[in-house]
Amino acid sequence: MFFQTKSLKEAIAIAREHIRPLEEADVVPTAEARGRVLATAVHSPIDLPGFSRATMDGYAVRAQDTFGASEGAPRKLRMAGEVKIGQPPDLYPPLAPGEAMAIPTGGALPPGADAVVMVEDTERSGPEEVLVFSPVAPGTNVMAPDEDLRAGQEIFEKGHRLRPQDIGALLGVGITEVQAVRRVRVGIISTGEELVPPEEEPRPGQIRDINSYTIRAQLEEAGAVPKLYGIIPDDEETLLERSRVALAENDLVLLSGGSSVGTRDLTLTVLSELGEVLVHGLQIKPGKPTILGISEGKPIVGLPGNPVSAMVVCDKLVIPILQRLQGEKERPRRPIALAEMARHVPSAKGRLDFVRVRLIRRDGRLLAEPILAQSGAISSLAEADGLVTIPAESEGLEKGKQVAVEIW
Amino acid sequence: MFFQTKSLKEAIAIAREHIRPLEEADVVPTAEARGRVLATAVHSPIDLPGFSRATMDGYAVRAQDTFGASEGAPRKLRMAGEVKIGQPPDLYPPLAPGEAMAIPTGGALPPGADAVVMVEDTERSGPEEVLVFSPVAPGTNVMAPDEDLRAGQEIFEKGHRLRPQDIGALLGVGITEVQAVRRVRVGIISTGEELVPPEEEPRPGQIRDINSYTIRAQLEEAGAVPKLYGIIPDDEETLLERSRVALAENDLVLLSGGSSVGTRDLTLTVLSELGEVLVHGLQIKPGKPTILGISEGKPIVGLPGNPVSAMVVCDKLVIPILQRLQGEKERPRRPIALAEMARHVPSAKGRLDFVRVRLIRRDGRLLAEPILAQSGAISSLAEADGLVTIPAESEGLEKGKQVAVEIW
Repeated sequence: MFFQTKSLKEAIAIAREHIRPLEEADVVPTAEARGRVLATAVHSPIDLPGFSRATMDGYAVRAQDTFGASEGAPRKLRMAGEVKIGQPPDLYPPLAPGEAMAIPTGGALPPGADAVVMVEDTERSGPEEVLVFSPVAPGTNVMAPDEDLRAGQEIFEKGHRLRPQDIGALLGVGITEVQAVRRVRVGIISTGEELVPPEEEPRPGQIRDINSYTIRAQLEEAGAVPKLYGIIPDDEETLLERSRVALAENDLVLLSGGSSVGTRDLTLTVLSELGEVLVHGLQIKPGKPTILGISEGKPIVGLPGNPVSAMVVCDKLVIPILQRLQGEKERPRRPIALAEMARHVPSAKGRLDFVRVRLIRRDGRLLAEPILAQSGAISSLAEADGLVTIPAESEGLEKGKQVAVEIW
Repeated sequence: MFFQTKSLKEAIAIAREHIRPLEEADVVPTAEARGRVLATAVHSPIDLPGFSRATMDGYAVRAQDTFGASEGAPRKLRMAGEVKIGQPPDLYPPLAPGEAMAIPTGGALPPGADAVVMVEDTERSGPEEVLVFSPVAPGTNVMAPDEDLRAGQEIFEKGHRLRPQDIGALLGVGITEVQAVRRVRVGIISTGEELVPPEEEPRPGQIRDINSYTIRAQLEEAGAVPKLYGIIPDDEETLLERSRVALAENDLVLLSGGSSVGTRDLTLTVLSELGEVLVHGLQIKPGKPTILGISEGKPIVGLPGNPVSAMVVCDKLVIPILQRLQGEKERPRRPIALAEMARHVPSAKGRLDFVRVRLIRRDGRLLAEPILAQSGAISSLAEADGLVTIPAESEGLEKGKQVAVEIW
């Protein structure tokens, strides 16, 4: 069996090619749908605002009555009353030529009126009259009944992930339920003879399982439903059997490996047994010992054993796979801070490097200080504020170079 | 009553000065503490890894036995067995001079060994012997027992917000519970005679409440516990009474206003009645008609009525207030995309402008196209991919200018 290592981009493309987006959808109350991905396009059921709406505080007028108005020669209009916010426009008699009605922002224009003069361009010359100092064209300071949204207009396309403002927008047109892609189920199997669960006291030679929990939290953050299948000893039969259960119950399975060569070999054997190995080795650092396989259309990823690598591969490869399963569009996911490299970091050509950095403010400049701890050190996970990417074609980052730090 | 409008920065500083962080903490299982803010610093209870751990696959050796080794003159060592991953080091007899043991990454060094030679620098010359082609110093390819973390070492400071990797790190040292700052309770009161709940059919002149739901989702995303108090008619007594209930039950109260001048005036009256008005008007666009007050140490914010303004003010002012209440450090919260302005946008000096933009990829360039719809239009909320900030000292953004788009 011979596999060429792949670039991250190639690996994602291979994964996308082999994976179909989930087709099942849930009906979800819009108010609870934040972070969910739309399974269908959504169209407005109504015209919005649905009536001619003032966008300024002022006076509803017939625009032609204001033509020619100026500071020196204001137009005098008769006050025909006051529009109350929230009242229907047919509550008022039609505005006759030469008449005006006071109107608040958001008020419905009375019949006959076609524009609003801002209060700043007027003066009340008596209880029954108002002077207009500036002409308005029809439609000025008015939102037309279908100006915001037309009935039938697409608001969101299929695959759109709902943000807070989208919840507001959907409820604003009365859409109280949406069809959302079913949340992706992810099974996480820990392998590695040296691992014990966090609540257990490790003997010398053992360490607590970190990766399953970091990965589970990453997946929850990304909107998936992760499930832990416990720590499996390095035994082919047991791992195969447990992987089959996880594959049956999930859309995606991750083998969160121990770091030994034995565990890595075992993961490869099991992935080959379960289906097809698509990628064996990524041209990234950390994260090289990553395996991607597919079993009856379901992706399986063998993650590297060390905590930093596992986390980076989860973010850079597994989350894109998850988004593919959710039918979600690509989108920037992490805050970025622009900083200056605090020191030189070398890098091998042909390999994408992710460098952990600490952000430090010094003399008003933001510095990215590389964390040089071994990638197995969990303290470096805790200390790092973010990652700097060194492209494959680069041989490193010079001290002082301006970099975009992805905040983690 | 005369109030000067404030810059956003001034308003945040004034808010921070008047607000004390919450002092109550919850005991939270670490596995469920993602996004929570630590109420205390956290220290490692143990040395990590707790034993001398191989960081490479290879051979555990006494470093001095390898001194002088080279390709031409390898050192020959006797095989004393194989370290199994997860096994305690005292399982093996101490390594005698001239001996080596095979060891996997993550394995515990046997007593007597003080370094690991990478497998790439060795050759098995027989079942009982291994050739070492390269010398190692003591400690090479070994993580010392307290190299990752020392018992008592601070892992996180008070006020740190737990990220996925932090969950892993804490569980990795056996910390299965943390003290987290109690989540901030936020009461949201809708005002405005024109508003109806989303499930109701508005009459002409009415519109559905959008802002309460957008804001609620924004607050949930930021880790708060928002509660809606319904839509209150524009009536001083009712609004005062409901605000008092909300203040008693929450740490922060938002009046999500209608857009009419009447509602704005009412909000100001009620805030003055309930406590002290600290800021009346922000030098930002959209978002100017914002009011910040304080009542017995609890902040109250009167939000502008139009949906875009309400959302911007929630993100730029309310979330920083929330973070202050949580005792959280400032941190970048949103992804950034670098783009080129697709057209000129003018701006008034002395005012911070937030421009909604759509991101468009054209000829390999990422363009930020300003959305010119009225800030009352909810369609523009749905369409915008992000915001571009025009600083107060600027008079606008030229077409072609490189800008950082905050992704929304």
